[in-house]
Amino acid sequence: MDNVQTNDLQAMGRAAKAAAATLAQLPDPDKQRALNVMADAVIAATDTILAANQQDLDGATIDPRFLDRLRLTPARVQDMAAGLRQVAQLPDPTAQIDRGWVTEDGLTITQRRVPLGVVAMIYEARPNVTVDAAGLTFKSGNAVILRGGKEALHSNQALATTLRHALTSIDLPADAVQLITDPSHALATELMHLNQYVDVLIPRGGAGLINRVVQTATVPVIETGAGNCHIYVDDAADLEMARKIVINAKVQRPSVCNAAEKLLINASVADAYLPVLAADLRAHGVELRGDDRARAIVPDMVAATAEDWDTEYNDLIMAVKVVDDVDAAIAHINAHNTKHSEVIITNNLAHSRRFQDLVDAACVYVNASTRFTDGFKFGFGAEIGISTQKLHARGPMGLDALTTTKYEIVGNGQVRA
Amino acid sequence: MDNVQTNDLQAMGRAAKAAAATLAQLPDPDKQRALNVMADAVIAATDTILAANQQDLDGATIDPRFLDRLRLTPARVQDMAAGLRQVAQLPDPTAQIDRGWVTEDGLTITQRRVPLGVVAMIYEARPNVTVDAAGLTFKSGNAVILRGGKEALHSNQALATTLRHALTSIDLPADAVQLITDPSHALATELMHLNQYVDVLIPRGGAGLINRVVQTATVPVIETGAGNCHIYVDDAADLEMARKIVINAKVQRPSVCNAAEKLLINASVADAYLPVLAADLRAHGVELRGDDRARAIVPDMVAATAEDWDTEYNDLIMAVKVVDDVDAAIAHINAHNTKHSEVIITNNLAHSRRFQDLVDAACVYVNASTRFTDGFKFGFGAEIGISTQKLHARGPMGLDALTTTKYEIVGNGQVRA
Repeated sequence: MDNVQTNDLQAMGRAAKAAAATLAQLPDPDKQRALNVMADAVIAATDTILAANQQDLDGATIDPRFLDRLRLTPARVQDMAAGLRQVAQLPDPTAQIDRGWVTEDGLTITQRRVPLGVVAMIYEARPNVTVDAAGLTFKSGNAVILRGGKEALHSNQALATTLRHALTSIDLPADAVQLITDPSHALATELMHLNQYVDVLIPRGGAGLINRVVQTATVPVIETGAGNCHIYVDDAADLEMARKIVINAKVQRPSVCNAAEKLLINASVADAYLPVLAADLRAHGVELRGDDRARAIVPDMVAATAEDWDTEYNDLIMAVKVVDDVDAAIAHINAHNTKHSEVIITNNLAHSRRFQDLVDAACVYVNASTRFTDGFKFGFGAEIGISTQKLHARGPMGLDALTTTKYEIVGNGQVRA
Repeated sequence: MDNVQTNDLQAMGRAAKAAAATLAQLPDPDKQRALNVMADAVIAATDTILAANQQDLDGATIDPRFLDRLRLTPARVQDMAAGLRQVAQLPDPTAQIDRGWVTEDGLTITQRRVPLGVVAMIYEARPNVTVDAAGLTFKSGNAVILRGGKEALHSNQALATTLRHALTSIDLPADAVQLITDPSHALATELMHLNQYVDVLIPRGGAGLINRVVQTATVPVIETGAGNCHIYVDDAADLEMARKIVINAKVQRPSVCNAAEKLLINASVADAYLPVLAADLRAHGVELRGDDRARAIVPDMVAATAEDWDTEYNDLIMAVKVVDDVDAAIAHINAHNTKHSEVIITNNLAHSRRFQDLVDAACVYVNASTRFTDGFKFGFGAEIGISTQKLHARGPMGLDALTTTKYEIVGNGQVRA
């Protein structure tokens, strides 16, 4: 049967390379068709997928907060299929020549965009990542090796088997999508060292997972996700605008990486404004932790510890610090942020320029919520993740982040003098 | 004294970050001026530098082939200074906005090019890398932490001290250029794990060094250099052109990564052509190693072993294989190459397209020598190295490879629905 997969990573790597060679040459209409066939197959397999998911839910011993991430419903299965159809419609990121020129020696050089080859993903208990990742890597011409959390193993197996059958049904290589079904750490570690076959490894999940991958992997990694995001309310802020943005960035979806975790407030507005803002945040269920100056203004805040300034809560908690000016805000942010998304609320142009120039982060905002750091909101039509490193891709990553380039050079006999 | 450096890597990392923040804001005219001051300082310190280099040469126990790389002369010191002046004149890679757009939510997003921050270089016994790397990282707005080979320690110390004095003399931070002067492996290993401060680590040197860095480092690495480059002579080749290109690619500078190491020759031209080409290569001092089919035509070749096909000789040695067609050449190359530079010699357009489409390498040539894979020959005006990985940069890297981007977003109070 074509869906029997091995957990021999060398064999999986070879199979992925072979599938990637086919995918790299596949015209976009064929990729569109395949993604739609995959979507149909997911819908057709809804019962099987939900039954497998129920097995995972029955066996789950994880934090109930995470059960919701693990749970699939008919609507969520439909969302996964819809996601595949959406990705099908996006422009093919490899159908592009970035630039070209003729050198002094008369060589014609073109820089073409090509797939990376083999992408590996290590993620946690969200089974939708299995389908998302398969769709995005397929559209960009890459084979994928997936390693999801053991909590979602049955769900992931059902999903991967469905996608592999769909590929086989239209004579495409099933090994474009492979799932590691042995959930041991040893195999994840081996995947992180599969340099011969893996072109990039993208971890998706919490800080613990990402750190472990960064510390362990010898294959190239794109670090994603951790977001200790700050909002600085300047002395020249529109305070009503600031209120709306702070509430939105903290409260609208506190569990995600682009939620705000820290509030820095200019001393000249803090006395009058912080009590109002604090009351509003608390009315939204937010626990506040303050530095000494913030607690002098709102005395019933918990005292923030040194650790707080470096913590991504992913929860309805916010630490508050009073700062003297924009430079103090910038210094604090650069010392504590995770290079994700940072905001200044101000109507002072010089302050806004200084903040955007000097804050070191993927996304630096003036007068908007951190929650816009998102491939869809940026208009990319897709999101592989949000890179918090500086190499290759920084900030929200669309399909382009799953490609590289190749120089194609044509001469007429040139040799080097 | 401002040039006293520590070998405490945490302190060096902090100092580098601080210097990088200054450099990132430095206008290009100031960077040009500083690079010219550094060049003047190198010239002025020629005697000191040569004396230090003599100490290294006196103590050298390395392979005499490498002594030439270690040796400095008045002319080579002048070349280093000239290199700094050249880099000064190049366009500032951070003076650029890559793109911008307005999102559906009315946010204005611009993607600005910015320095990486702190670049680390680990290299071997070429003291010129100290000055090259300092110049290139400075021009692109980055601080650099250098760790050269112990064979060149005195030379590197003299050079780094000179550059640091030059920076101090014009009130710029000396810590933009730092050299690790403790040559122990432990410190190199610590540098490879300095994730808090190092944004990218670029190893320059032989395969052993690069492998060690890739296997050990947790900081992001750009892999450079290894070149097991092939030339495939097609049945539709201009054989006289092929001869010139093969000789040039193999002989003109055999020790470098873009020299050709392997000759693949189409069976239909091999009988008549290989004896001629083999004689010519041997006349240039090249030792040939052949597969069975090549040795059936030129019997006095050494038999190539399995290992030969994966070896970068960096020497006047070439392995020869007879293949049936362009697909066989492509399959062999993709199984054995290091993704550096590959050539087809042909006048058949379909063969040339197939070769360029299917060969997986940074640079894929038609009818030209592998030796053109070079930042200068590509017209970049500089070269940091040649990336053989697919993330961030692939092929010859100019100053752009030392930059990343930052999204700057301006709104007027947008919050996420």
